[in-house]
Amino acid sequence: MALVSTDRRYTGRVINLDVDQVRFPDGATGPLEMIRHPGASAVVPFLDPMTDPDPRVILIRQFRHAAEGPIWEIPAGRLEPGEGPEDCANRELSEETGYEAGELHRLTTILTTPGFTDERIHLYAAGVLSQVEAHREWDEYLEVHPLPWSRIMAMIESGEIVDGKTLVALMFVQCIVRQP
Amino acid sequence: MALVSTDRRYTGRVINLDVDQVRFPDGATGPLEMIRHPGASAVVPFLDPMTDPDPRVILIRQFRHAAEGPIWEIPAGRLEPGEGPEDCANRELSEETGYEAGELHRLTTILTTPGFTDERIHLYAAGVLSQVEAHREWDEYLEVHPLPWSRIMAMIESGEIVDGKTLVALMFVQCIVRQP
Repeated sequence: MALVSTDRRYTGRVINLDVDQVRFPDGATGPLEMIRHPGASAVVPFLDPMTDPDPRVILIRQFRHAAEGPIWEIPAGRLEPGEGPEDCANRELSEETGYEAGELHRLTTILTTPGFTDERIHLYAAGVLSQVEAHREWDEYLEVHPLPWSRIMAMIESGEIVDGKTLVALMFVQCIVRQP
Repeated sequence: MALVSTDRRYTGRVINLDVDQVRFPDGATGPLEMIRHPGASAVVPFLDPMTDPDPRVILIRQFRHAAEGPIWEIPAGRLEPGEGPEDCANRELSEETGYEAGELHRLTTILTTPGFTDERIHLYAAGVLSQVEAHREWDEYLEVHPLPWSRIMAMIESGEIVDGKTLVALMFVQCIVRQP
């Protein structure tokens, strides 16, 4: 697909909305709505070595207007202008949880919902944590919860964890990294 | 958080954009951009029994403007007005792949990216497939690929699969459903 033209319809605090005219593989053209997003990083913070049988991980419980209540997530946030994904992961981890990572391992990168946004989230696991001070942003109302890995897997199975990036990062660790 | 007021800024083909005034837990109010979406279903179609050691699954390869090229996905699509998530999963499976499901198992439901949209995707695994005719939508340019489970797990590990819903559904089967 090729971009023919783009028309910015909304400029916001977090997102912008464009209506792009796109040429499809068969030569036809049509409009596609596209939410432009700067990208983000998210991190699974391990309080114990990832190879332990049942290591503790920090999850946050955060009010989300989209969910009409609090949901479970891993620490995450948007890339600042010029900021790299690893620096963003480290910054968001310390801002949201009060912990700094001694080690950061890249997991994978996701397109959150490519039908209407170019948002990419870079996923990491963090280890060797040391405590610093938390600096929370004005619109983040969140609690920090250390939870054992077995409990987190049960929360995935029961449907208690619904956030897409959080599910991908946790199960990537379980299926790919922790597999023998 | 409580909704104080809402202002529709854009009405589109797939999505609508609202700027909501929201009251936060501390009593302050502020604006939040919210993409309203009707919701969707997505399905992991198993050509062989899920309990086989290396069952084949149908993935689709689809051009996505947001990815500036083709990406791997499971069959998926938006809920039509009044349509339930299971009916949507069955319809999208047959429209996109030409297969009908004899069995549908619910996996979980995700919020794709709750920071700026209320989009929920209901995830299923389908089995006992029988071939029917495919009816593709005008904007879907996709190929249908049966692939062995072991190959799909390798594609997750290597970062070849980047779509959020696809990663959650496949790893939910691997981590939760197929685990002993």
